[in-house]
Amino acid sequence: MTASTDRIVIFDTTLRDGEQCPGATMTFEEKLDVAHLLDRMGVDVIEAGFPIASNGDFEAVAEIARRTETAIVAGLARAIPADIARCGEAVRFARRPRIHTFVSTSPIHLAHQMRKTEEQVLEIISGTVAQARNLVDDVEWSGMDATRTPIDYLCRAVEAAIRAGATTINLPDTVGYATPDEYRNMFVQVRERVPGADKVIFSTHCHDDLGLAAANSLAGVAGGARQIECTINGIGERAGNAALEEIVMALKVRRDAMPYETGVDSTLLTRASRLVSAATSFPVQYNKAIVGKNAFAHESGIHQDGMLKHSETYEIMTPASVGMSKTSLVMGKHSGRAAFKDKLKALGYELGENALQDAFARFKDLADRKKHVYDEDIEALVDNQIASGNDRIKVLSLTVIAGTMGPQSATLTLDIDGVHTTVQAVGNGPVDAIFNAIQRVVPHEAQLALYQVHAVTEGTDAQAEVSVRLEEGDKMVTGRGADPDTLVASARAYVAALNKLATKRVSLNAQAAIRA
Amino acid sequence: MTASTDRIVIFDTTLRDGEQCPGATMTFEEKLDVAHLLDRMGVDVIEAGFPIASNGDFEAVAEIARRTETAIVAGLARAIPADIARCGEAVRFARRPRIHTFVSTSPIHLAHQMRKTEEQVLEIISGTVAQARNLVDDVEWSGMDATRTPIDYLCRAVEAAIRAGATTINLPDTVGYATPDEYRNMFVQVRERVPGADKVIFSTHCHDDLGLAAANSLAGVAGGARQIECTINGIGERAGNAALEEIVMALKVRRDAMPYETGVDSTLLTRASRLVSAATSFPVQYNKAIVGKNAFAHESGIHQDGMLKHSETYEIMTPASVGMSKTSLVMGKHSGRAAFKDKLKALGYELGENALQDAFARFKDLADRKKHVYDEDIEALVDNQIASGNDRIKVLSLTVIAGTMGPQSATLTLDIDGVHTTVQAVGNGPVDAIFNAIQRVVPHEAQLALYQVHAVTEGTDAQAEVSVRLEEGDKMVTGRGADPDTLVASARAYVAALNKLATKRVSLNAQAAIRA
Repeated sequence: MTASTDRIVIFDTTLRDGEQCPGATMTFEEKLDVAHLLDRMGVDVIEAGFPIASNGDFEAVAEIARRTETAIVAGLARAIPADIARCGEAVRFARRPRIHTFVSTSPIHLAHQMRKTEEQVLEIISGTVAQARNLVDDVEWSGMDATRTPIDYLCRAVEAAIRAGATTINLPDTVGYATPDEYRNMFVQVRERVPGADKVIFSTHCHDDLGLAAANSLAGVAGGARQIECTINGIGERAGNAALEEIVMALKVRRDAMPYETGVDSTLLTRASRLVSAATSFPVQYNKAIVGKNAFAHESGIHQDGMLKHSETYEIMTPASVGMSKTSLVMGKHSGRAAFKDKLKALGYELGENALQDAFARFKDLADRKKHVYDEDIEALVDNQIASGNDRIKVLSLTVIAGTMGPQSATLTLDIDGVHTTVQAVGNGPVDAIFNAIQRVVPHEAQLALYQVHAVTEGTDAQAEVSVRLEEGDKMVTGRGADPDTLVASARAYVAALNKLATKRVSLNAQAAIRA
Repeated sequence: MTASTDRIVIFDTTLRDGEQCPGATMTFEEKLDVAHLLDRMGVDVIEAGFPIASNGDFEAVAEIARRTETAIVAGLARAIPADIARCGEAVRFARRPRIHTFVSTSPIHLAHQMRKTEEQVLEIISGTVAQARNLVDDVEWSGMDATRTPIDYLCRAVEAAIRAGATTINLPDTVGYATPDEYRNMFVQVRERVPGADKVIFSTHCHDDLGLAAANSLAGVAGGARQIECTINGIGERAGNAALEEIVMALKVRRDAMPYETGVDSTLLTRASRLVSAATSFPVQYNKAIVGKNAFAHESGIHQDGMLKHSETYEIMTPASVGMSKTSLVMGKHSGRAAFKDKLKALGYELGENALQDAFARFKDLADRKKHVYDEDIEALVDNQIASGNDRIKVLSLTVIAGTMGPQSATLTLDIDGVHTTVQAVGNGPVDAIFNAIQRVVPHEAQLALYQVHAVTEGTDAQAEVSVRLEEGDKMVTGRGADPDTLVASARAYVAALNKLATKRVSLNAQAAIRA
């Protein structure tokens, strides 16, 4: 390890590897919000999606490419000419476009998934990387399952990619199998043996199946990698990817031991974690490193004693350094429109005039019902509004009679494409009654896979944010709804999930058409 | 690294370092359940608590010591004669008792927390370890904040502990600060330099503040440690401890690279994860390694395709190897008492005659209301019953009228020490109304810090399991309630939290008395 400072490229794949994990589907608007925050926080590369997967993916990548101001915007493409062409179309709107193309290199993938010989795969690499380089100057090539690929063949594959014009070489631990020593050694060997290795940037991409993703990423850097692929909250396939917040803070806090730096503004990590958790409805566990609720909490008497005497006795970083602050009281029913607009801006929202008007009306309504309105309440309200902007089905009104005497009953009015329908239904519990009422108005086959309620802020009059996950065959979607009344929030969440499911059906049909 | 196989001692501290993190407080019965499962799954050492902290802690450690059949039962003690004596009293009932005593060794702790010189601390180590060795043969000594202790002084401290009779030497990364290379090197150096180091077992204890706990633990083993301290789900102070399930599976899956073995039956990992999550009400994030809901789920088309062709293309371990199986349908309303008893036994519960009778009655009631009764439903029902066994306050009945028209109202009857009280209250949403009603019957200052609803199983008629976290000054407790009706579950959870708070007040008063 040299003593000189080195810049690490942070490549965020929350919108690609993160979003493709079961249940994490985000809407178009949610993707734009996440990308906007990633750009603002100084992430170097935003992998925005997999353009050929569906028209929705394509549109999201293209729109993120158009809007992103600083970061490189990458799209993913298989080693197939049509994939690369489509990816090029999506990212060409970016100020700094990248095509990221990948192919399997391990014997097990070649034999069982690709059904190609090693020589055939080398030819594919040369052809597809060259095609990508004709479209953009910045081409990343990944050798899928690199950690289970014999080193000799891996070197030949990397050499082919570099010769064809790849500028970044990513060597992923696709199945989350490597140990830190193995992962470091792989980079050391490939960089020593492959001609031209000094001209490209090597990249890590680690999965957390054995809990080693962060350590493996840093071991890759010790082996010479200078790009780390990661996701907010570590979401992603199976046990997820390396968590961006852990990588960024490990490099920051332990710069004495690991003399590298990133361009990420760490004070936005908590906000990014909350935004992604809200968009996916994936809860962050309390003891999650950096961004968990308890990450900076000390309970035991011994530790509290130490903290009071000297905060460094137990703290290696401050809550402020990751943007974690006490919930702050912001506004009440007497707050005006200008103050509300300022607050939204401070929270990172830039709404158009109509959306602002709508949000302000909802805020006044909330302030009438809730004593204190906190930052988080406003975030929930606006996130909720953004998410439901283009929905075909909307909840108009709800009345519930419930209790231990049962059966509980719900009377519900829905607006579907402008037509209002009212029904009454009973159920086993008030939520079941509401869901039965929705089923009666909008018949569907989807199964409820998850029902979750969070309090947005503290106190008994907190807004409830409900998440509902529905499964229909292979499709899985999560809808959210926020309201001081849990039951109203539940109805909104279920309807939001139904709206998403309708969108996803269209998208998957498009995917199927591509594969056929 | 040698090629020979080596046995790693798995030291579980879920009930000590895990339980002392904010909000994770478990009841006496919950602690016994967790300890029973840990013993059954082959954990080598169960750290059952901190006996001097409170009478409740003492009783839990003593009872776990009495009941544990195979594992060593350890109690924690500061380097204070009264602590060690009390710990000795608690663990002496165990077949294999251990006293685990610790003292800070880092300059920052010595200067700010201990206010002692290095020489004074060495004398304390000699005296307290010798005292412990007079009580039991198995003494573990920990140098708190070892990773921030200069190596020369750390070696002197370890030498003092070994001379005084310590049989296990634990070198914790108390603040979650170390990198794997540093942590490995620390063990290598201490083992090389300290006389008698070859006669004791060295131990790792890693916190996950930078996401490196699992990797650091394994690096410690590479440096010569042969005990790993860890917790189920990685719960613990701040970002938590190294996760037992990650350590066990990394050693199992990558035995080719790390030739060590543990005695843990990995097929019980999922059950242990669920039990601890239920007892603490700490959710496990979906992409948590090994035990998360998504840990074995594959969504993207490419991966699914690979899985269908050959499961090894993406799986490095099977769901069955960690005891994760599809939710299984078990029983309905026609199932008899014998079948129910067999099912409980298969799920790992051994109830007395009265508790069994009570559980069967609740099961019949549930089966009347719910079409399919799953393993998880029965677990929730029994866990709920065990948790509420000795409660002073109980929910008798509840009626709620709710809806968008508001205000919502709740009529509630509580049993407090046998006296029944009925009140009516309104609120901002039905849950708020219920909580207001409880507040009216049982006035208290506690604030609601968390309100959470899970569906126990899938489908719209799933039982709801509600968690309520209350804060009163420094005290934080979490109560749970399960019922097909979310609102009834909410009332039960809030009342459970109030019951726990009453218990905790007693325990903390005892702690304060000790410190004074």
